[in-house]
Amino acid sequence: MKIEIWSDVVCPWCFVGKRRLETALSTFEHADEVEVVYRSFELDPTAPHHGHELSTGVIARKYGRSEDEMRDMQQQLIDLAAVEGLKFRLFETVHTNTIDAHRLLHLALEADGPALQVELKEALLSAYFEGAADIGDHDVLAATAQRVGLDAARVAEVLAGDEYADAVAADIAQARAYGATGVPFFVVDRKYGVSGARPAEVFSQLLDQAWTESHPVLQMAGGDAEACGPDGCAI
Amino acid sequence: MKIEIWSDVVCPWCFVGKRRLETALSTFEHADEVEVVYRSFELDPTAPHHGHELSTGVIARKYGRSEDEMRDMQQQLIDLAAVEGLKFRLFETVHTNTIDAHRLLHLALEADGPALQVELKEALLSAYFEGAADIGDHDVLAATAQRVGLDAARVAEVLAGDEYADAVAADIAQARAYGATGVPFFVVDRKYGVSGARPAEVFSQLLDQAWTESHPVLQMAGGDAEACGPDGCAI
Repeated sequence: MKIEIWSDVVCPWCFVGKRRLETALSTFEHADEVEVVYRSFELDPTAPHHGHELSTGVIARKYGRSEDEMRDMQQQLIDLAAVEGLKFRLFETVHTNTIDAHRLLHLALEADGPALQVELKEALLSAYFEGAADIGDHDVLAATAQRVGLDAARVAEVLAGDEYADAVAADIAQARAYGATGVPFFVVDRKYGVSGARPAEVFSQLLDQAWTESHPVLQMAGGDAEACGPDGCAI
Repeated sequence: MKIEIWSDVVCPWCFVGKRRLETALSTFEHADEVEVVYRSFELDPTAPHHGHELSTGVIARKYGRSEDEMRDMQQQLIDLAAVEGLKFRLFETVHTNTIDAHRLLHLALEADGPALQVELKEALLSAYFEGAADIGDHDVLAATAQRVGLDAARVAEVLAGDEYADAVAADIAQARAYGATGVPFFVVDRKYGVSGARPAEVFSQLLDQAWTESHPVLQMAGGDAEACGPDGCAI
């Protein structure tokens, strides 16, 4: 069973949703047969590569609201995240670009497989939301990637060029093809989609449903009529 | 999409069911992506290899009824088959063994693929029901197999030994595992089962359902809540 998750590294609901899915997986009987793959989604491709401005001011302008109002909203998200054991520092996060983080996530998937990609995703989300780090910055990216075990030379090489930019674009195009306008966006076996960081119980139901679907028991129609058996033919 | 059909060569409902499925397939939009494979089922493994006795007498004993009553039942089957364009000669068919016919059907599948297997199945059913031939007889089998294009030397070789007897036994075991007690028994994508020569409309519905199932459109849950989009994060 394969779960693909479209997600951005600067998306608070994506981190919360990651935890909620993990909670569902922790009690799912067939969790060892589930593969999780992260797909790229850029909430703001125009964000600067070296974030200097705090997110609070940027979203205040975007919503046309005061920074105080934004901080109230951020506090609600901080409280919600705390329920999942996450220590969000939303008042300190900077407005930054995530294309390079996504390119490294593709490198991790290709070079080391889904398990390491998930580790890198976790490290990047944590660096941004719990460490208030600028994950658009190449030094931050390189250090984070190295910490989870990616090859330092390959990371430097990828960051210096534009490798995997096409893969990031393809992921975003696929999300649009699915009609996704926001993230997180979960797709199971390319069949069931869930938009948003839904409660763990919703993910549990989804896992059960998709498992049943992909491990069918024969669904029967008909009976003894119009058939022949060892004792003759029914008429 | 794969349809497996458990069937015996001396089973009148199997021939009728074959026609009805073909009727459904003739109007099915994706018929060229459907593979039909016949699986073996022996209604009477104890039947003699050289049939001398007419079927009518054998089934009369089996049912504990008179031959006249049996002929009434056979006439009903003859009439039903005629609706499908089949000319059953049930009063002339002999009680015979089908293991060798099934072994040749496995040879056809392995050597020449499902299309030729279906041709051989049709030829064997027609030889028995419309030609009143003893399809337990090796000469009849060899002639029928050669007519549809099987290699004569391989056919002779298989008939002389017990090749594919294990494949026939495996098919029958699989039918029992599915809970099938009679034939025809249709299984689509190892997921949907239909017992009996159901009307063509039933097969049409089954084809539609199985096609939809195997070519999913994303089924969505959730919405804009608990997600972040280009315009911000919903809270």
